[in-house]
Amino acid sequence: MTALQITVDVVTVIFSVDPEANRLLVLVCGGELPRLPGLVLAEELSLAEQAYQVLATKVQVEHLYLEQLYTFGGPGRDERETSQRRCLCVAYFALVQYQETVLLLEPQPVQWVPVPQLPVLWGDHAQIVQYGYQRLRNKLEYSPIAFQVLPELFTLGELYQLYTIILGEDFSDYSNFRSRLLKLGFLRDTGQKVCRGAGRPASLYRFDQHAFLPYQDKPMVFI
Amino acid sequence: MTALQITVDVVTVIFSVDPEANRLLVLVCGGELPRLPGLVLAEELSLAEQAYQVLATKVQVEHLYLEQLYTFGGPGRDERETSQRRCLCVAYFALVQYQETVLLLEPQPVQWVPVPQLPVLWGDHAQIVQYGYQRLRNKLEYSPIAFQVLPELFTLGELYQLYTIILGEDFSDYSNFRSRLLKLGFLRDTGQKVCRGAGRPASLYRFDQHAFLPYQDKPMVFI
Repeated sequence: MTALQITVDVVTVIFSVDPEANRLLVLVCGGELPRLPGLVLAEELSLAEQAYQVLATKVQVEHLYLEQLYTFGGPGRDERETSQRRCLCVAYFALVQYQETVLLLEPQPVQWVPVPQLPVLWGDHAQIVQYGYQRLRNKLEYSPIAFQVLPELFTLGELYQLYTIILGEDFSDYSNFRSRLLKLGFLRDTGQKVCRGAGRPASLYRFDQHAFLPYQDKPMVFI
Repeated sequence: MTALQITVDVVTVIFSVDPEANRLLVLVCGGELPRLPGLVLAEELSLAEQAYQVLATKVQVEHLYLEQLYTFGGPGRDERETSQRRCLCVAYFALVQYQETVLLLEPQPVQWVPVPQLPVLWGDHAQIVQYGYQRLRNKLEYSPIAFQVLPELFTLGELYQLYTIILGEDFSDYSNFRSRLLKLGFLRDTGQKVCRGAGRPASLYRFDQHAFLPYQDKPMVFI
């Protein structure tokens, strides 16, 4: 056993996509030197419960994806550290649906900031955002994470837009994206059409969780 | 701040592949109720340094792959826990080359055990092994982790065998595996041949790190 005192913060990197402004956003809180939302680990909560509580103190949201990201351990990553105290940060990463997410502005101001224009953040939090951003990009390429934050019915154009905002415009052209995804068979055409802006009515699709099962837990690139 | 006392163990799940016995192995230590090698986090070490030190107290090895796996937090995962004490476990996962790995049998006995015949382990360590095994399988499918533990020159048969031992016999047939990998262009035929057992001499290949660069950090399934 050691006399080392350890503080564990649980921090949640909350990403969202604003489809109208075409922007990937991350939630930060505080004023002059913003930081990621976080709480000191409470004695009775699991890490995932604590991460969820961090999220619940900052936003109200129904649909979300949450998973553990990485544990940042320093030493020297936190100003509270001394020779007898280490501050670890167990980071989680979340993706929430932008339109339905309500920011809780008390007791501390929170705001969405675009990932490409991230301000200077407290401590190593910018590094944690970058790590989360890389994970988000990877997950988008081989997991159905996108469907957890899209509306239940969506057009292929909306799905493509979500991918483009996160991965950049050059990740794939639309017709390639469309044909690869449709071939995999986990998007169901509902038969319904919708008019979004100009152009022909677009088909509404639904993600078929059951048809995705064979791909579950398999690295698979579907874009 | 909280009065909660936190102990952080760093544990390393060390995998290896015994090509002669065709087995995937994991290193455990101790006697009646074996456990994964681990140490309480020391005040001056980073998490990765601590994980490496865990490994270095149990084995001597030159070629290895090491990365952070997951942080297991409970509560209730460790018998040392009380209402005022939590024990977190930051788990790392390593893959080492079997032939060159020397087990350090003092001060505690250590042994390789086949993953499919894992004995009952201390606490949640069996769960940590399973988590690591899943990560190992995934990494094998989209990262060059195999080449870090194969000899510098290897036959495609040896490479296929490594994959088969970890992923199971039905993951792919040999000719499919061979043609997919060769097409990607990061295996270099050295022009040298070797006789291993019966049959025609087999070509020796080398992993070309430079040719792999375009695939780096991209989820990509090459098997």
